[in-house]
Amino acid sequence: MATIKEIADQLHLSVGTISKGLNGAGDVSEKTRRLILDAAMKIGYIPKRSRRLGAGLTRICVFIENMDYEKVEQFGYDIILGFKLEAAAERWDVSIVPLAMNRKSECSYEDYMKTNRYAAGFLLGFRLHDDWLAQIRETNVPTVLLDNVVYRKNVACVGVDNQQGIFYAVEHLAGLGHRKIALLNGEADSCVSHERLAGFQFGMRKCGLTARKELVANGDYRADGTDGAVRRFVREGATAIVCASDSLAHSVLCELHRAGLRVPDEVSVTGFDDLPLASYTTPSLTTVRQDRLAIGKNVCRVMVQLLGGNPVSRLLLAPELVIRESTGRLKT
Amino acid sequence: MATIKEIADQLHLSVGTISKGLNGAGDVSEKTRRLILDAAMKIGYIPKRSRRLGAGLTRICVFIENMDYEKVEQFGYDIILGFKLEAAAERWDVSIVPLAMNRKSECSYEDYMKTNRYAAGFLLGFRLHDDWLAQIRETNVPTVLLDNVVYRKNVACVGVDNQQGIFYAVEHLAGLGHRKIALLNGEADSCVSHERLAGFQFGMRKCGLTARKELVANGDYRADGTDGAVRRFVREGATAIVCASDSLAHSVLCELHRAGLRVPDEVSVTGFDDLPLASYTTPSLTTVRQDRLAIGKNVCRVMVQLLGGNPVSRLLLAPELVIRESTGRLKT
Repeated sequence: MATIKEIADQLHLSVGTISKGLNGAGDVSEKTRRLILDAAMKIGYIPKRSRRLGAGLTRICVFIENMDYEKVEQFGYDIILGFKLEAAAERWDVSIVPLAMNRKSECSYEDYMKTNRYAAGFLLGFRLHDDWLAQIRETNVPTVLLDNVVYRKNVACVGVDNQQGIFYAVEHLAGLGHRKIALLNGEADSCVSHERLAGFQFGMRKCGLTARKELVANGDYRADGTDGAVRRFVREGATAIVCASDSLAHSVLCELHRAGLRVPDEVSVTGFDDLPLASYTTPSLTTVRQDRLAIGKNVCRVMVQLLGGNPVSRLLLAPELVIRESTGRLKT
Repeated sequence: MATIKEIADQLHLSVGTISKGLNGAGDVSEKTRRLILDAAMKIGYIPKRSRRLGAGLTRICVFIENMDYEKVEQFGYDIILGFKLEAAAERWDVSIVPLAMNRKSECSYEDYMKTNRYAAGFLLGFRLHDDWLAQIRETNVPTVLLDNVVYRKNVACVGVDNQQGIFYAVEHLAGLGHRKIALLNGEADSCVSHERLAGFQFGMRKCGLTARKELVANGDYRADGTDGAVRRFVREGATAIVCASDSLAHSVLCELHRAGLRVPDEVSVTGFDDLPLASYTTPSLTTVRQDRLAIGKNVCRVMVQLLGGNPVSRLLLAPELVIRESTGRLKT
């Protein structure tokens, strides 16, 4: 975080003068004050009072896009809850803002944060091509992203270790004797998908298996169905399908059922997330658990570090394999 | 055996202040504590409580292999210092154990930790094929590794974001007009080297350049010389060489000098680490700074999280590009 001292050094003025200029004291000329405010904006100085409003409250904004969070069974719910729990301990004042609202305002991220005196932001559900995510590459506001990676001081990413998670799924299936394992990944252009693909390739290599191109496909977390991927996988001889989300795995289970294939006797299936639905599918889903409450809490902890000047870039949490009924030894 | 009195005499401080600094008492400033721990390390002071099995004291063991840490100009020094600074605030009892000592005992990691009542371990300098590192895959002792990645509950990895660091170097060189950029990486079988190679490939792609196989080579951080890599790079038309360490970059500077090539007019060179030596080479080194003090401090913070049951898997810190004299626009 830029300091008053840095502005003073740059302008060859005293710290006292800078402070007066920033606070609007009467004995600093208009010209000098403009110079000071100009320099302050350029080096990204955020006055303390912008971070503390009223009775010492630090204001934090959580922006959500493309993610359901309002009900307990939805992906974002526990993340927001974990964040709020930990933020309450810090006595922060947290606003939750679904992004569609802001888009209409046609305001930049930087301006929005400054105008509303937010000390830090937390962005969930954004995609690589989103406008605000692009702006984060140049922000000076301490910002934490879920899953996305942006190389920028004061910007950190928190998420589960995706590579590790998919590795666990592959290791589990290989241990059950599967050799032809397929991956139904998420959208091709997301950070998360890149990492899950890397985890798949790493896991296959570690287990002495070959990751074949025709056994890898990209799906859509929110769409119904898998656009023929399941049929292709089965035609190519796959006996196990690793899915990048529980929703995708649910679609796969439905398609296998329609095709008259038994799970797990003929095909094993794994999910990712461990949403409540994973216990209720037939058969119940073996999946990679993301501890979303822990993710939310750790976003808050990383934010504390960023506000304290600690150069954290990325925090990954360990996923956990939850074994249920959708995986088993091949029965021929 | 060095005493508190000796540290006090050296720093012209009272024995009481030294004692407070070593114990992490709140009324000693961070700056003073650093001075005290620094002096304590230099004269080899070992606190008495490290020698007895205290009641209620949290005992932590730091194991070091393949890494120099005893002098301020060496890589491990600031990491250990940062760890001790933060551990002092936790009032932990920290032992530093160079690994050769343990190897002779032919004791497993698990047994060693239990026998000596260590609550957690921090391993620096280990390589992927090392015996103890293999054992960590099955440990139940909260353990933090520097740079290495092991998938295991209670085991976390802390380090600088290597991919981001090499990306910064490539982006800087591409910005100076370089098109044929070479990478002199570290040992091929280390996690760090894999990530730095990925950062190189990612950076080249992002800058619209091609990462050519013949412009990538592996070196040895500790060896003298680069085994002909520099000559090959130059023959292939490279105008810039990204190195995976300052020591490698120093070797590259020497070889370019011997070959009569001017840096940066004919070839630009970047290092990694920002060791003290980077300021003293001719020309001084543009390099990627690892804040080693911050690494040490964050290892301690992650250890606190592991001991508290928080499933942290990996913490990466943001590197910083330090621009000095060894990089510049191509002059033809």
